[in-house]
Amino acid sequence: MNYKMMGRVCSMILVITATFMIPSVILELVDGERRAALSFLITMAVMYAVAIVLALLSLRAKRDFYAREGLITVSLSWLLMGALGCLPLCLSGQVPRYIDAFFEIVSGFTTTGASVVAMPEALSRGILLWRSFTHWLGGMGVLVFLLALVPLNGKNEGFTMHLLRAESPGPDVGKLVPKMRQTATVLYATYLGLSVLNLIFLLAGGMPTFDAFCTMFGTAGTGGFGVRSDSLASYSPYIQTVTTVFLILFGINFSCYYLLLLRNVRAVLRDEELRMYLCIVAASIGLVAWNIRDLYDTVGETLRHAAFQVVSILTTAGFATTDFDLWPSLSCVILLTLMFVGACAGSTGGGFKVSRLLLLIKGVRRNIKQMVQPQKIQVIRVNKKPVSERIMANTNAYLAIYVLIVIASTLIVSLDSFSPITHFSAVLACFNNIGPGLGAVGPTQNYSGYSDLSKLVLIFDMLAGRLEIIPVLVLFSPKSWKRSK
Amino acid sequence: MNYKMMGRVCSMILVITATFMIPSVILELVDGERRAALSFLITMAVMYAVAIVLALLSLRAKRDFYAREGLITVSLSWLLMGALGCLPLCLSGQVPRYIDAFFEIVSGFTTTGASVVAMPEALSRGILLWRSFTHWLGGMGVLVFLLALVPLNGKNEGFTMHLLRAESPGPDVGKLVPKMRQTATVLYATYLGLSVLNLIFLLAGGMPTFDAFCTMFGTAGTGGFGVRSDSLASYSPYIQTVTTVFLILFGINFSCYYLLLLRNVRAVLRDEELRMYLCIVAASIGLVAWNIRDLYDTVGETLRHAAFQVVSILTTAGFATTDFDLWPSLSCVILLTLMFVGACAGSTGGGFKVSRLLLLIKGVRRNIKQMVQPQKIQVIRVNKKPVSERIMANTNAYLAIYVLIVIASTLIVSLDSFSPITHFSAVLACFNNIGPGLGAVGPTQNYSGYSDLSKLVLIFDMLAGRLEIIPVLVLFSPKSWKRSK
Repeated sequence: MNYKMMGRVCSMILVITATFMIPSVILELVDGERRAALSFLITMAVMYAVAIVLALLSLRAKRDFYAREGLITVSLSWLLMGALGCLPLCLSGQVPRYIDAFFEIVSGFTTTGASVVAMPEALSRGILLWRSFTHWLGGMGVLVFLLALVPLNGKNEGFTMHLLRAESPGPDVGKLVPKMRQTATVLYATYLGLSVLNLIFLLAGGMPTFDAFCTMFGTAGTGGFGVRSDSLASYSPYIQTVTTVFLILFGINFSCYYLLLLRNVRAVLRDEELRMYLCIVAASIGLVAWNIRDLYDTVGETLRHAAFQVVSILTTAGFATTDFDLWPSLSCVILLTLMFVGACAGSTGGGFKVSRLLLLIKGVRRNIKQMVQPQKIQVIRVNKKPVSERIMANTNAYLAIYVLIVIASTLIVSLDSFSPITHFSAVLACFNNIGPGLGAVGPTQNYSGYSDLSKLVLIFDMLAGRLEIIPVLVLFSPKSWKRSK
Repeated sequence: MNYKMMGRVCSMILVITATFMIPSVILELVDGERRAALSFLITMAVMYAVAIVLALLSLRAKRDFYAREGLITVSLSWLLMGALGCLPLCLSGQVPRYIDAFFEIVSGFTTTGASVVAMPEALSRGILLWRSFTHWLGGMGVLVFLLALVPLNGKNEGFTMHLLRAESPGPDVGKLVPKMRQTATVLYATYLGLSVLNLIFLLAGGMPTFDAFCTMFGTAGTGGFGVRSDSLASYSPYIQTVTTVFLILFGINFSCYYLLLLRNVRAVLRDEELRMYLCIVAASIGLVAWNIRDLYDTVGETLRHAAFQVVSILTTAGFATTDFDLWPSLSCVILLTLMFVGACAGSTGGGFKVSRLLLLIKGVRRNIKQMVQPQKIQVIRVNKKPVSERIMANTNAYLAIYVLIVIASTLIVSLDSFSPITHFSAVLACFNNIGPGLGAVGPTQNYSGYSDLSKLVLIFDMLAGRLEIIPVLVLFSPKSWKRSK
């Protein structure tokens, strides 16, 4: 195992994460929150210290770097970011228990948005900013950010590839441009551009600057932390509509934007994942709006709530404009299904991913065809390109691991005394990085009622969901740590 | 398509089904239920008439018979059995609406045990007997019965194989003995032997003869229809314990019994599916008993209810001795999970099957190992024999179809106004051929509240679950019916 290279990457990740705390420190000082400011400074000191030690330990690292090491590095660095990034919350006394703070910040980095805080208004603004900013950083991936920033390992493309593959969502990570580093740069540039645009639209609607920044971070990362306890319910319909539109945009595969920049509109329009994603959005909004037609006064209000909630859950943001736990059961079941589906691969959204669902459906259709005509060889195509059997096998295996983790997690959290639908939706909402579920973890509730054991399970689910399971399982698999001969 | 051969098989199936109504006719005449007796006689006449017409149409059938035709024949014959076998219920006026009678009898043949009848005590004994007997016939499969009975197509092993494969549960149907017909005979002989043993034990406990027969049919087929509205709750602990033990036995792969007859005890003890099945039984009973320890007076009573309910759900029978819908949420979630797991392949139980779960888990472990050591080729073994990649691919595809059908069905039945957990458990309970679910379809409730559309969806789920999806999907796939060149 190339421990030195792994240490070097983790060290750099910590430096980046710590540096991004500076705005929060300034904000706390401006607000006169001295204890909170001090908490951030102590945390930064700890993170820099750990980074320096790691850097010193990993001088003269070898260049060899394999898939296994990439997977473990990614999982480890995310664990470290969560374990240290949560320190300001408990040091400042605003989230007194460490496990709660850990839950909150992992929920932030994984863009889940599941909270243990009942009243965000009670937190200081620096903490709120940091909490929301973790969404932005986690959305596109902090390692992708690192790769976009520094030429990490000279000409070793494999190294960059292994890291990028492990952190980026979707069944197959393609290169947009020949070099992986440039791919990372293009991704982050697009991400930044869309984020700024979102911010402008929010500010134009008269949203307070602080709220606009936090909402933008939560939208861009499809995270879902808000600064008010009613999420987005008390903002104007304009703000809610802007957020709906930008959530749809952030849920699209970012390679589509790259194709648009290259003026290849035709390829974007023909993209099967994008089409399926938009169809799911439209169909779900229609069905939910029809189902809740009696609950709101006007057609406009009904459509606005239906669209916001469908998009918020599908893109796995988890913002709320209304308490959808009170909606009729068809709408609840649709939302539960959307929790499972998730956004497009290569977007900032979580979940199973539309492209995987597309592959599953095509695989099932092939399976039936093969039963009918066993002698004919059937090739699966997406966007007219054949899909390799390796990717099909991986997609099927992904579903199997996914189902097994959902079952195991639900069984463990069921030790707590909520209803089965609460447990099931809590696991789905955390595993798919959404945030609020139904019942006791519904949009007007929070996760503070769960036991520490359940919180640890849900933290595992959030990390496994964000990193698409394999890296986390490899980290915890004893076989990974065996000395290779 | 070899329509003539398909017609010939369906014709014989109808003759067998109709003939098995004779005991019910006699019972109705003894009880003086003239209308019910007449209903059975009319139904028999209709079935014989249809059978004769089919037989006349299919004279001089060709011998060629392919997998596709096997799959369609099995689905069609099961649909026919349900569509005509339910006539006595509505003709006698005891289940007035045809859709309800259809639901009830498909639930019988598929060994689901989901009922639309609130009070079984109100039905005549002939109807009750027929309802329960469909469990026994459907448990091992009516086609397997036919194959055991008649040499259908001379020396054409492929023909018998295709039919047996399509009707028997499990990822891989092995031959016990070189000839498929002998395999069918061995299976039915074992089934009959165990059933008689079960009956003797029930009668020895002082159960009324009629009740004993019906309970035995429901146990052997792991169906779950009872003759009392409280299922087995009002019978003695002895009866409940006997039923628990025999349910476990009927949930075991029947090839284990064949190995025992050959005195190959070692192979049985080493069977990985059997071990996993017994581990699941033991672990679930332990957990549920611990979870419900405060609800019952004595340890014995707690264990008896826990064991009965765990086994009844895992083997997909669906009998009840207590209202488990009132149990704490951990127990409910465990029961929901067991609904998904199901019994062993090659048993009379339904569900996903323990052997498939075993393959899934082994597949996932291989997937992780391959991520860690990509250069090493990993072979999956069950009982020390390598499992072909084709079976692994089919198992993964099966999970995909399974998940998609559960999601689609839950969405459609959610149009009705029950709670999400009712809808989800109703679909799971029908698809896995269990019967009672949670909430409004819990053990003290029934399915009569669902709309006709939902009932049709649940009928589809029951058939798809019993025949393991593929045959039913092939039946409804337009491609299957295209003329081959």
